[in-house]
Amino acid sequence: MKRIDGGICAVPGVRACGLRREEGYGLAIIVAEGAAAGVFTTNKIRAAPLDVSEKNLAAGGRLKGVIANSGCANAYTGTRGIRDAEKMAGLLAGHLGCAPDEIGVASTGVIGRYLDLEQMAEMLEDMKADLRSSPEASEDAARAIMTTDTLAKEVAFEHDGFRIAGIAKGAGMIEPQMATMLSFLYTDADLTSEVLKECLTEAVDDSFNMLTVDGDTSTNDMVLITATGQSRCEPEAFKEALSRVCTELAMMIAKDGEGATKGVVTVVTGAVCREDARAAAKTIMGSCLVKTALFGQDPNWGRIVAALGRSGAELDPDLITLSIGSPAEEVTLVDRGRIVEGGSVLDRAENVMKGDDLEIRLDLGLGQGEARSFGCDLSYEYVKINSEYTS
Amino acid sequence: MKRIDGGICAVPGVRACGLRREEGYGLAIIVAEGAAAGVFTTNKIRAAPLDVSEKNLAAGGRLKGVIANSGCANAYTGTRGIRDAEKMAGLLAGHLGCAPDEIGVASTGVIGRYLDLEQMAEMLEDMKADLRSSPEASEDAARAIMTTDTLAKEVAFEHDGFRIAGIAKGAGMIEPQMATMLSFLYTDADLTSEVLKECLTEAVDDSFNMLTVDGDTSTNDMVLITATGQSRCEPEAFKEALSRVCTELAMMIAKDGEGATKGVVTVVTGAVCREDARAAAKTIMGSCLVKTALFGQDPNWGRIVAALGRSGAELDPDLITLSIGSPAEEVTLVDRGRIVEGGSVLDRAENVMKGDDLEIRLDLGLGQGEARSFGCDLSYEYVKINSEYTS
Repeated sequence: MKRIDGGICAVPGVRACGLRREEGYGLAIIVAEGAAAGVFTTNKIRAAPLDVSEKNLAAGGRLKGVIANSGCANAYTGTRGIRDAEKMAGLLAGHLGCAPDEIGVASTGVIGRYLDLEQMAEMLEDMKADLRSSPEASEDAARAIMTTDTLAKEVAFEHDGFRIAGIAKGAGMIEPQMATMLSFLYTDADLTSEVLKECLTEAVDDSFNMLTVDGDTSTNDMVLITATGQSRCEPEAFKEALSRVCTELAMMIAKDGEGATKGVVTVVTGAVCREDARAAAKTIMGSCLVKTALFGQDPNWGRIVAALGRSGAELDPDLITLSIGSPAEEVTLVDRGRIVEGGSVLDRAENVMKGDDLEIRLDLGLGQGEARSFGCDLSYEYVKINSEYTS
Repeated sequence: MKRIDGGICAVPGVRACGLRREEGYGLAIIVAEGAAAGVFTTNKIRAAPLDVSEKNLAAGGRLKGVIANSGCANAYTGTRGIRDAEKMAGLLAGHLGCAPDEIGVASTGVIGRYLDLEQMAEMLEDMKADLRSSPEASEDAARAIMTTDTLAKEVAFEHDGFRIAGIAKGAGMIEPQMATMLSFLYTDADLTSEVLKECLTEAVDDSFNMLTVDGDTSTNDMVLITATGQSRCEPEAFKEALSRVCTELAMMIAKDGEGATKGVVTVVTGAVCREDARAAAKTIMGSCLVKTALFGQDPNWGRIVAALGRSGAELDPDLITLSIGSPAEEVTLVDRGRIVEGGSVLDRAENVMKGDDLEIRLDLGLGQGEARSFGCDLSYEYVKINSEYTS
């Protein structure tokens, strides 16, 4: 699998543009025609654009474009929210000369506020001449949907004769249960909407669904994929590439988590089953105490064990092996239930924890269940960002 | 029900003392003979003193004393930890001239470290002459078991001819699933161990089990109750008084949550059932985004609705009523699904949120299910405390 430049515009036929009007308000449009599928939040307070996008996908399994705004989530806005999301789709449909139900629509921002459609129409007018297929256009779109994100998140690969690429946004309110905050994926592979949906659900399950920044599942989580169908591909090769794209975007979101100073992967092996491994990996990665210890570069591994203990996973304390590693070094702190003592162990662990990319590894010693979760540390900056968000 | 002074020593026959040797290391002993019961953490990594206390209670349903230390949790310490906890019980038993299995034993502090029994024996030697029945003795015991707590937590009531009182500790790693970090309750009521256990389980379920500071269930959570049997009482009156004691202690722990600037109660009514109300109240109170908004005095109620949406509770968005209140004023932000607009609403809510004691009220408008949860805000200080805990 070969990494390529260009973001979503690396996929032939994908055009994009993005504009930010004032801090916190942005609009992205992406135009590409093809079979499409989506996955959506499981939060019962589900934002209006998700209902509209899901309905549009159900109508024909195809999309001609996506319109997404940042600054207002259009969530908990009732029937007016639904009408607003339909009008938002209509804005792009009008420009493209297609039906509104051929458009995907997405929003991110403050919950409980109505969209400013007038402003949005003006912005679309200003930006539509910029719609093009270029690396800059992909980045503009990725930037336009950022809220508390500090980095634009894009990735593209060429694999087995086809291309696949995605952009994503997300930094807080991140513990997706079906998808992450927002991600738009494109491929030139020749696949039906049904196959796309199946591949997407599987890929999301091991990537975005194993991501946690603060445990708060958003009302607006959505991943959309569009396949333009210009290149033939093998479904297995496609699954592999899609999983890679989703995992890389999930790791980018983790590392750009609100206030994060480190990207962290928790790897659990040896669980009795996959579900136990997933529960353990996610519980550890979501623990405020583990996350503050990571921020403090404090090898207080007892918190990892305590989080494991409440995860619901089957355990034998005497079989657990636990290590903390950076790309350069791995330090074993517990070896099959035995606390590794000796003067330098905690010092070495503290040193490893100074890195920006950490891996927590736990072998439960019971079976073949494995899982990875993606997250970050919890810093002062997280509190700052979220105590002043709408002020 | 009449509030009285004196902490646990308000109950006739209860003697106590406490000592702190150096920052973070403390020892409390409490002596009182009677029928006893306990509830213990559900964390699968369960600390040694819990196993020993549970075994001792099972042996005869009676206790003669409790010994509890802070600084070392004696958790994830294997068979050596069990032996150490038994030796710890033996220290107090030796002093009282009773069997070790008539002693309750508890620990709180860093996980994955062994007890220093030598230091503990020295401390017991130094403090045992101070064992007495006085308000100061109760406070000394409450202080000796504090870790990151900033306030000693004590409460006592007289009700229907008997007395009931308790002390507790807890500030972080607080999301008890059977009990809170540590709480020792005393009454002179005349009740059997079986009745005590039944009353305690019920009281804990609506108090400590509805408490969340950081979502991390401790390995060492334990509540012990001892009834000296000197006063006759009606079980219903006792249940009422016990529930009051547990709820007040839970609220003290919430308000003294690590880094907390506010104590918060979330009241959910109108759920289809009690379990839904409990899930909703706990999910909201545990949300990092709700907690940082509370710290920022930011009436970003969309986060409350988003947390409600992922709680699993049955919902109709159009029936929800949401308000934020202080003891002085209550501001309705959503009225049966309608966003309350008008210039001053958010200003008034922001003003209410400046208080130290807040109530979030949600009526789901569906049924009769009700629950309350207890928590606090999430501040810079929480991050500071927990990123530097073992450094």
